[in-house]
Amino acid sequence: MELSSILERAVLLYGREPSVFCGDHAWTYADLEREALALAGGLGAAGLLPGDRVAILHRNCHRFLQAAFGTLLGGEVLVPLNVRLDAATLGEQLGDAGARLLLTEARFRPLAEEASAKAGGGVRVAEVGALHAAVGGSAPALRTPDDLAQIYYTSGTTGRPRGAMLLQRNIASHSLMAIAELGLADGDVWAHVAPMFHLADAWAVFAVTWVGGRHAMFPDFEPRPVLEGLRSRGVTITNLVPTMLARLVAEPTARAAPFPALRAILSGGAPISPALLERVVETFGTTYVQTYGLTETSPYLTFSALKRTLRDRPAAEQRRWISRTGRPAIGVRLRVVDDSGRDVPRDDRSVGEIRVRAPWVTPGYWNRPEETAAAFEDGWFKTGDLATWDAEGSVNIVDRKKDVILTGGEKVYSVEVEAALSTHASVFECAVVGLPDEEWGEAVTAAVVLRPGEQVEPEALAAYLKEHIASFKIPKRFVFLPELPKTGTGKIRKDEIRRSLARAGS
Amino acid sequence: MELSSILERAVLLYGREPSVFCGDHAWTYADLEREALALAGGLGAAGLLPGDRVAILHRNCHRFLQAAFGTLLGGEVLVPLNVRLDAATLGEQLGDAGARLLLTEARFRPLAEEASAKAGGGVRVAEVGALHAAVGGSAPALRTPDDLAQIYYTSGTTGRPRGAMLLQRNIASHSLMAIAELGLADGDVWAHVAPMFHLADAWAVFAVTWVGGRHAMFPDFEPRPVLEGLRSRGVTITNLVPTMLARLVAEPTARAAPFPALRAILSGGAPISPALLERVVETFGTTYVQTYGLTETSPYLTFSALKRTLRDRPAAEQRRWISRTGRPAIGVRLRVVDDSGRDVPRDDRSVGEIRVRAPWVTPGYWNRPEETAAAFEDGWFKTGDLATWDAEGSVNIVDRKKDVILTGGEKVYSVEVEAALSTHASVFECAVVGLPDEEWGEAVTAAVVLRPGEQVEPEALAAYLKEHIASFKIPKRFVFLPELPKTGTGKIRKDEIRRSLARAGS
Repeated sequence: MELSSILERAVLLYGREPSVFCGDHAWTYADLEREALALAGGLGAAGLLPGDRVAILHRNCHRFLQAAFGTLLGGEVLVPLNVRLDAATLGEQLGDAGARLLLTEARFRPLAEEASAKAGGGVRVAEVGALHAAVGGSAPALRTPDDLAQIYYTSGTTGRPRGAMLLQRNIASHSLMAIAELGLADGDVWAHVAPMFHLADAWAVFAVTWVGGRHAMFPDFEPRPVLEGLRSRGVTITNLVPTMLARLVAEPTARAAPFPALRAILSGGAPISPALLERVVETFGTTYVQTYGLTETSPYLTFSALKRTLRDRPAAEQRRWISRTGRPAIGVRLRVVDDSGRDVPRDDRSVGEIRVRAPWVTPGYWNRPEETAAAFEDGWFKTGDLATWDAEGSVNIVDRKKDVILTGGEKVYSVEVEAALSTHASVFECAVVGLPDEEWGEAVTAAVVLRPGEQVEPEALAAYLKEHIASFKIPKRFVFLPELPKTGTGKIRKDEIRRSLARAGS
Repeated sequence: MELSSILERAVLLYGREPSVFCGDHAWTYADLEREALALAGGLGAAGLLPGDRVAILHRNCHRFLQAAFGTLLGGEVLVPLNVRLDAATLGEQLGDAGARLLLTEARFRPLAEEASAKAGGGVRVAEVGALHAAVGGSAPALRTPDDLAQIYYTSGTTGRPRGAMLLQRNIASHSLMAIAELGLADGDVWAHVAPMFHLADAWAVFAVTWVGGRHAMFPDFEPRPVLEGLRSRGVTITNLVPTMLARLVAEPTARAAPFPALRAILSGGAPISPALLERVVETFGTTYVQTYGLTETSPYLTFSALKRTLRDRPAAEQRRWISRTGRPAIGVRLRVVDDSGRDVPRDDRSVGEIRVRAPWVTPGYWNRPEETAAAFEDGWFKTGDLATWDAEGSVNIVDRKKDVILTGGEKVYSVEVEAALSTHASVFECAVVGLPDEEWGEAVTAAVVLRPGEQVEPEALAAYLKEHIASFKIPKRFVFLPELPKTGTGKIRKDEIRRSLARAGS
């Protein structure tokens, strides 16, 4: 599968119609190809060779699309960086990737320059649109499916930057699977709302272009303009994280008008609460699909889309299925195994780690042979996610393996405690972690953000929880915080919470 | 991509519902897996090893599905044979493939035994259901995407049998593409009407199972029961050859009741006439999609499905698009090149050969390195089909390269003459070939089958054609035949016609 042929096909069949919308810009695929070729020429003129790493620090934009295809045509490896990171961390990632160039936009230029300096100064900084040149006399770079296409940085366990590598064939096979699973077609308009430096959205760059669909770019996440854009661009499908969905349905204009073109909203990165799921379906009047995946898996592994054999079941049962993590995507082999590597029974009670095989699993981490080796067992990728699965073949994540709390000889799944605590009327959000404790081994500890104006005593929260979960799962300590630290994609950073609470408690 | 995982997923998610229907049999996917494993065990017990060739001579049947998955699980290579061939030809193919076993059904047992004898007698003959055994103690065969999965015999140019090899990854990537292009999902019911020994139908074995759809088997092509089955099984999609479609719409019961579940009819193997297309759409009340592909390409390369940019065009223009050969499928790179290898302009007049690249192109012919080398140029597969293409990116086949007639210094495309001749009210079907001629080089010659009870003079046909095509294209000779020789899939055998007319004429 040749990824560069994706744009070739879009130009052949849909080249003359506006298909990429960003602010006032409306590009046809012919425009996109011309600009991508100009960037590929510019990269070549700047001395970059096939295989060289080109980082990008950019909000969602038609220029991001240009960079994705430009590097593909030039043969370079794209390294998308999180625009919310600090210069030191960005510099570390640039250094780790050995990036020679950092593509950016005007507003991030100072941050990009600083990151380059932190990386030793050898990383040239340029705006995407500025690197135009005709492609040189040589033929376009010849790529093979086994060529490295992109590197995405994830938070490793060691704290060092760790880049998951995606090959051409990983991206190509994942694109085909996603098109098949989601029924993507040329009538689709995809909203790039979640950040494109993360695979939750970035996978759609190739898949949507492949089918000849349209791209609507949302550079910033502001609920009101996003809702307006979903309507005015005729968006048919998008993928959002639950925190974004919560903000969208809370916006007063959300129910002011329908979203007639919207046919599906995908969400992932965290479980969705039943209450939020209900509001999302009501507000948008469309199908909801829970997704699950990892950067290392391109990303999708499961979808919660209702299967045919459940279509005559009661609505509550269907809703329960849809809100679970999901069933394996086509092409994914999935196991849930206990500590001794045995498959756990499909009783929806026994917990095990999700392990997968799929053509879109990363070959490993950039320059990290030991972490790569540790991530696999007998060819199966160890997700680090603990789950149950039921007789219908649907898995449900109970916790990250590293977030499980061992307290007084019992296992406590932080996600279960958080779900119970979240239903308390005064709680806006929370994170439950285990802190080292002489008596308990680990002490269940809750970091809680209250809703504006609310006040509640720890004892009241403990008493509330007593009605919902077993006593040994109730936090020994509640810490009230103004906000929780999050990753660029909105995931709560439990590692950070654990560190700061441990420091504060000692 | 591991093909054997396709059945694993179907069992996990859809295992308990009847999903394979054949006569009175209704198998669940769990049934299919159990039977496929039993066959895999039986193959092992019979001494077959991974990589060994297992041929099959069988009508469409749940047992065919069992053989496809059983050989996959056992690691053997399946070699589907055309049930309409004679024992000598079958024996040649068995010998060429080095098959050790021929799976069959009771009615073909004598033919199978005779074919085995022709092959030297070393090929064991067994009915699919008879080879049951528990899978041995050893683990299931470990396959890789580069393993050979199937061999399909095509008529080579030399007259010798020529087996196109399909690897696991060819079948897997083609399946994903077909699911994506056709929007196959678990609600689909596929009718296996076209013979499963040919890829026009066989590709659906894996793709439909992968999405968890249902299979409806039609062992024999009889218009009335096929029409009944399309209704009673709730068939949603199928692929038929034009000759089958012509017989279906001619059946009086075709319009007796609607086909509410049917959402698409695919057809390929030959162009469809505008009149037949019209009747198909009217009769079935569904979408028609012209497909194009070759055994060597798993098979699909193009589809005529209407693209979004044409959806507001006049109906006639849309019909014209749909009746063309089609536009490249996702994942297919397609060129139309002239004799010197240059791309022809997209003016829908300039003719060139279709050349393709795709992950599902065969690696070559079994034990035929020279024919394999001749089939490719610079990594592009030479289809041998001549076509034009238009500014919208849709190709249209004008002829097989080897069927073009060179007469008096002019090129005549046999397909154009046939299309004109077919519109004559007395003509049931026809084939136009070039025969060696001292004066013309080749003389345009028409083999004609008249409708029952019709009679017409050659001069009348020539006069009729004069109104439709240029004079130099009009056949010099019309030969009236009771029927035309056809391949097992209903394609007219022009090679055979050319040979017999040349013999008769000399």
